[in-house]
Amino acid sequence: MTIGIGLLGLGTVGAGVAEILQTPDGRHPLVADLELKRVAVRDLNRPRPIELPSEILCTDPQAVVQDPAVDIVVEVMGGLEPARSLILAAIAAGKPVVTANKAVIARHGEEIAAAAADKGVYVLIEAAVGGGIPIIEPLKQSLGGNRIQRVSGIINGTTNYILSRMADEGAAYAEVLADAQRLGYAEADPAADVGGGDAADKIAILSGLAYGGPIERAAIPTEGIDRLDGCDVNYADQLGYVVKLVAQAKNLGTASDGTVQLDVRVSPTLLPKDHPLAGVHGVNNAILVEGDPVGRVMFYGPGAGSGPTASAVVADILNIAGIRAATGNNGGLDPLLAASRWRNCALVDAGETLQRHYVRLQTGDEAGVIGRIGSCFGDQGVSIRSIVQFETSGEATDAEIVVITHEVKQQHFANALAAIKALPEVKAVAACLPTL
Amino acid sequence: MTIGIGLLGLGTVGAGVAEILQTPDGRHPLVADLELKRVAVRDLNRPRPIELPSEILCTDPQAVVQDPAVDIVVEVMGGLEPARSLILAAIAAGKPVVTANKAVIARHGEEIAAAAADKGVYVLIEAAVGGGIPIIEPLKQSLGGNRIQRVSGIINGTTNYILSRMADEGAAYAEVLADAQRLGYAEADPAADVGGGDAADKIAILSGLAYGGPIERAAIPTEGIDRLDGCDVNYADQLGYVVKLVAQAKNLGTASDGTVQLDVRVSPTLLPKDHPLAGVHGVNNAILVEGDPVGRVMFYGPGAGSGPTASAVVADILNIAGIRAATGNNGGLDPLLAASRWRNCALVDAGETLQRHYVRLQTGDEAGVIGRIGSCFGDQGVSIRSIVQFETSGEATDAEIVVITHEVKQQHFANALAAIKALPEVKAVAACLPTL
Repeated sequence: MTIGIGLLGLGTVGAGVAEILQTPDGRHPLVADLELKRVAVRDLNRPRPIELPSEILCTDPQAVVQDPAVDIVVEVMGGLEPARSLILAAIAAGKPVVTANKAVIARHGEEIAAAAADKGVYVLIEAAVGGGIPIIEPLKQSLGGNRIQRVSGIINGTTNYILSRMADEGAAYAEVLADAQRLGYAEADPAADVGGGDAADKIAILSGLAYGGPIERAAIPTEGIDRLDGCDVNYADQLGYVVKLVAQAKNLGTASDGTVQLDVRVSPTLLPKDHPLAGVHGVNNAILVEGDPVGRVMFYGPGAGSGPTASAVVADILNIAGIRAATGNNGGLDPLLAASRWRNCALVDAGETLQRHYVRLQTGDEAGVIGRIGSCFGDQGVSIRSIVQFETSGEATDAEIVVITHEVKQQHFANALAAIKALPEVKAVAACLPTL
Repeated sequence: MTIGIGLLGLGTVGAGVAEILQTPDGRHPLVADLELKRVAVRDLNRPRPIELPSEILCTDPQAVVQDPAVDIVVEVMGGLEPARSLILAAIAAGKPVVTANKAVIARHGEEIAAAAADKGVYVLIEAAVGGGIPIIEPLKQSLGGNRIQRVSGIINGTTNYILSRMADEGAAYAEVLADAQRLGYAEADPAADVGGGDAADKIAILSGLAYGGPIERAAIPTEGIDRLDGCDVNYADQLGYVVKLVAQAKNLGTASDGTVQLDVRVSPTLLPKDHPLAGVHGVNNAILVEGDPVGRVMFYGPGAGSGPTASAVVADILNIAGIRAATGNNGGLDPLLAASRWRNCALVDAGETLQRHYVRLQTGDEAGVIGRIGSCFGDQGVSIRSIVQFETSGEATDAEIVVITHEVKQQHFANALAAIKALPEVKAVAACLPTL
């Protein structure tokens, strides 16, 4: 039974998908049933990494969506529009959709899911998070018996590449970014990556699946690595930590109306070197899921790239093909694979939750300053794990003091910090990072 | 829609499953549709960690299988018989089966799969490998677009616990094993774990899924850790490696008749410390899958225990429930989830494949011995990565020389080793371990 595939976009990921479909040998036999029927590209004359029969290429994505030979629409063009409209058009035509488009799903996922449920078609998004790492399907299909406590991850390869090199080479952020752009690991406009927006898109998607309700993407507190000082990476290393851009969604409990209270955020974060996410280097990604009763499970692999992302896209196509092989077109939707929502989620202020902190203070190099800083924390009941003075390479009279706290309430920490700022010896709170 | 669950066995895993089914709140809503209808136990009077209504307990597992209220049979009793017969009886009754029984699946998987295909029911086995780690379902449902090149893993928690402690504490094998038995991490009869048989069961299952054909369990070369000398763990550490019990299945290519040639084996193996599997400590497991085009993806988590294994069992139950919600009882089998075989696999002699080796030689402490050993390797074209002499704590005239080779053909390595054994200064080849 042949299943017709329509491809919207033939860039890096699209070419990777076409490559798999054209070389089924040695892959799962269902791949041989998939036939690339029509491909929408922007420019018919552009040279491509893959050769396709010219009659299946066109410049009209709507024609691909509406082509009766196309059974499954694969959207790998990226961007919000026309991607969103094309996905909705495919659903309206009763066609299942596979997309790698995290931006569209993070922003318009509920609209798309509602339309898909209404029409009884799947919209699958394995490639939207973690590149080739199977994470969306395991979250939907393998962890449903759990109460998920936390999902955390390194889910942006560009920033992890930059942070890995900053740590390994002691290099400055701007310098490594420029190099990453030259090497193609960062885009000419790196804002979505280094500002944390891409990771926020992805954690919105992951937490929606893990907790079973829509997540308000715009409400996710997001801090990127663009203002991170290399010296904090260096100090963290000396204290037994690595700095990673961590996206996390922590379950704070359920309100009386059944709404799950979530602390979702993206920020540069200190991880102890023996933390499972600490060993994730370069452009790799990893997602750690903590649940009851499974404990901690982690999914690791290449977070981007043509081949890995295409692997994830084809996985989704095969899932649709597999179900179609079993049921024809007449079945309803499997609620696991369809990822139907079952409760509400609310992003809440994490003020009452416990959190560890890393703080770097610029001070005069005077006797007793460590003691006075320690007292400010102690007065608020903030317990300190370590407090270390580093000599700065600048003026001899200045010092930097780094404090790592135990888990404390945000309000107590804020109070202590206010008292510290008021100390005459303290010139600035130069950095403040969450610590796992 | 209620789905009736029949449980065969109420030990550690069975109690974990019952616990999840009885506390659906906060889990996927499909869990609430699952109802524990009947449970077979060995002794009705034994105290249990979980309270169940006495009327659902019985001592006759066949009665559970045949109970019309039971829609899905969950086999968590372990052992080969009567587990195998009960699984076949459930299939014959047209009931899908979920099992955590790696021994039965590794030995009788083909018989069971054939019966299941014939009856059109699923037999799902997520809990049979890797405890709570989602690995079976991702292999079946998320990596089908790939040509799998290698599956390797640390898939026995007991041996990994022992090896981790040997490395951390420099302790001897027998000493750590005794302690592990006292703590419940190793069984009173540890043979299946420390001899590698449990890992061989699991790699047979994993490679059958990854490569799409039956694997002859009895033909898997299996070496355990029971003859591993602590000094090799120590020397490996000094040379930048860790020793792990690695199970692996490497794709050596496809014969002209389409049979996949596999090198499948279990043995203590040196891993460079930056290898993704090297950081897996204690009772954790991890499985690394290498494929084209996905690259390397790794799945990590707790490899055993009541909660994690129960999480995997419930995942399988939910998959069956999800498909039933979509199609009722009338659908055919999804070829991905059913893991239908599509080609033949053959275990072949790895003589022609390339392999790195660690060799420990006991020699007299004479000048020139390193040179003569090096020459024996050189004469066979065996390229050496490092050759290091360690002083032994024993007699002053004796030394131990450790050689780590680059990738070499087995035959060349064997020839070199024969020449080395014939050297008068060489007293013994004390250890020989593969190296990744």
